[in-house]
Amino acid sequence: MANKSDVAKMLPKDFRQMVRKGEWTEKTADVCPGYVQANLAVVPKDVAFEFFLFCFRNWQACSLVDITEPGDPHPKLVAPEADLRTDLPKYRVFRDGELVDEPTDVRKYWRDDLVGFLIGCSWGFEGALRAANVQFRTLGDFTTNIPLVPAGPFQGPMACSMRLFKSSYDAVRAVQISSRYVPEHGAPVFMGEPEDIGIKDIYHADLYPHDDVHPRQPSEIAMFWGCGITPQLTALNAKLPIMISHKGGHMLVTDKLAAEMTVL
Amino acid sequence: MANKSDVAKMLPKDFRQMVRKGEWTEKTADVCPGYVQANLAVVPKDVAFEFFLFCFRNWQACSLVDITEPGDPHPKLVAPEADLRTDLPKYRVFRDGELVDEPTDVRKYWRDDLVGFLIGCSWGFEGALRAANVQFRTLGDFTTNIPLVPAGPFQGPMACSMRLFKSSYDAVRAVQISSRYVPEHGAPVFMGEPEDIGIKDIYHADLYPHDDVHPRQPSEIAMFWGCGITPQLTALNAKLPIMISHKGGHMLVTDKLAAEMTVL
Repeated sequence: MANKSDVAKMLPKDFRQMVRKGEWTEKTADVCPGYVQANLAVVPKDVAFEFFLFCFRNWQACSLVDITEPGDPHPKLVAPEADLRTDLPKYRVFRDGELVDEPTDVRKYWRDDLVGFLIGCSWGFEGALRAANVQFRTLGDFTTNIPLVPAGPFQGPMACSMRLFKSSYDAVRAVQISSRYVPEHGAPVFMGEPEDIGIKDIYHADLYPHDDVHPRQPSEIAMFWGCGITPQLTALNAKLPIMISHKGGHMLVTDKLAAEMTVL
Repeated sequence: MANKSDVAKMLPKDFRQMVRKGEWTEKTADVCPGYVQANLAVVPKDVAFEFFLFCFRNWQACSLVDITEPGDPHPKLVAPEADLRTDLPKYRVFRDGELVDEPTDVRKYWRDDLVGFLIGCSWGFEGALRAANVQFRTLGDFTTNIPLVPAGPFQGPMACSMRLFKSSYDAVRAVQISSRYVPEHGAPVFMGEPEDIGIKDIYHADLYPHDDVHPRQPSEIAMFWGCGITPQLTALNAKLPIMISHKGGHMLVTDKLAAEMTVL
């Protein structure tokens, strides 16, 4: 298998070929830096309109970078040559809300009525924060008590990624910079104390923990962004007959640069 | 009927009440300045996903501010008390792509499977340009040859609004300011000569003419924004069994301030 320094230099299409051949089944955090990576949620066509509506109404948690037409596995806007059935390193397949498989390829589950929703990932603006020398650390992804606007069978609380900023200067810069990354969650949804949005233990992220669990300094400012896990969790809670997602951290690497998709 | 200076001071909910009672059937250009106004396109649920996809894929022409659930006439995000069947001053009703009625109320056409799409209007950023003392004039809305990304039965060229800027300074400021108004078409889609996007006569806008037809000065810079008429024209071309839109210029006045919906 290629190592981290190889995949950090690859073009997205070459990396996806490697994934397609089964030669990379790991997380994609260090892969093709600068390119948009996307969370995946695949749902049947008969709920696709309502799911789309749910994403639109809760944009900062469910910001979309592409949606496929029923049965079509190719995300035409962000990676026309990619195949959603084979090009993510690891998937999760749910039936009636229960996990039934965790394969590296979902061709055998694919159907003519499946619609793929690709949700931007905050790694895009994280790269921009680092490039701008903003001082911060990421504590992971948490379930919060922030309510979402329901649509059809879809409802539930928002998942958020949490970051600690060294100073108020860094926090202000982070608001400015992340705001531009509209397809990758955009501006923070909350600034303040974690317990105010239902997070009890910042050192043990329930959805996607990070390694950095050094104690929070009193001067550090906490900010929270909507997280792309949200729509998956929501689709899961709706107990759809079938729902396919990526496994946490094993994303689709698209052909679009994060900077290319900013608004301003 | 109330006059222009009355409606310029009204709150959106009061103006909509007046429309609902049939006391205002005129255009909404001078109504409730600062509030988001929206173009309307109502389509049946069986094509709503594809229409939504079309709008998403062609965002700068079809930027959405709200979408209703099937049969529900209330736009929950931007004006929960509004009723899409009665609160626009004038409608157009099409069957199989043919205009069949131009009523001031569409209650008799409403069905349980109709979905309303509300598309932001460039009047929002126009107000911001004026507030920032940007020097420009608006020449109207034109059909162009800029192709759109198709989705399902929806395809066709982009409609654009055209503005002439006094200097390159004004044009640069207009790019900066309009970019923030993501739900109201955002940044321009083209900067350059009208004939390069298929516009032959800038003094006779084919879709929505303006009064200002003074000759263009050589120093004036032309810029073009995606126009909210686009999705209506597209829905019309798809010859849907039923499609309801507002009549040009007779928009829904929402409760949201344009500045409230900016991204940055």
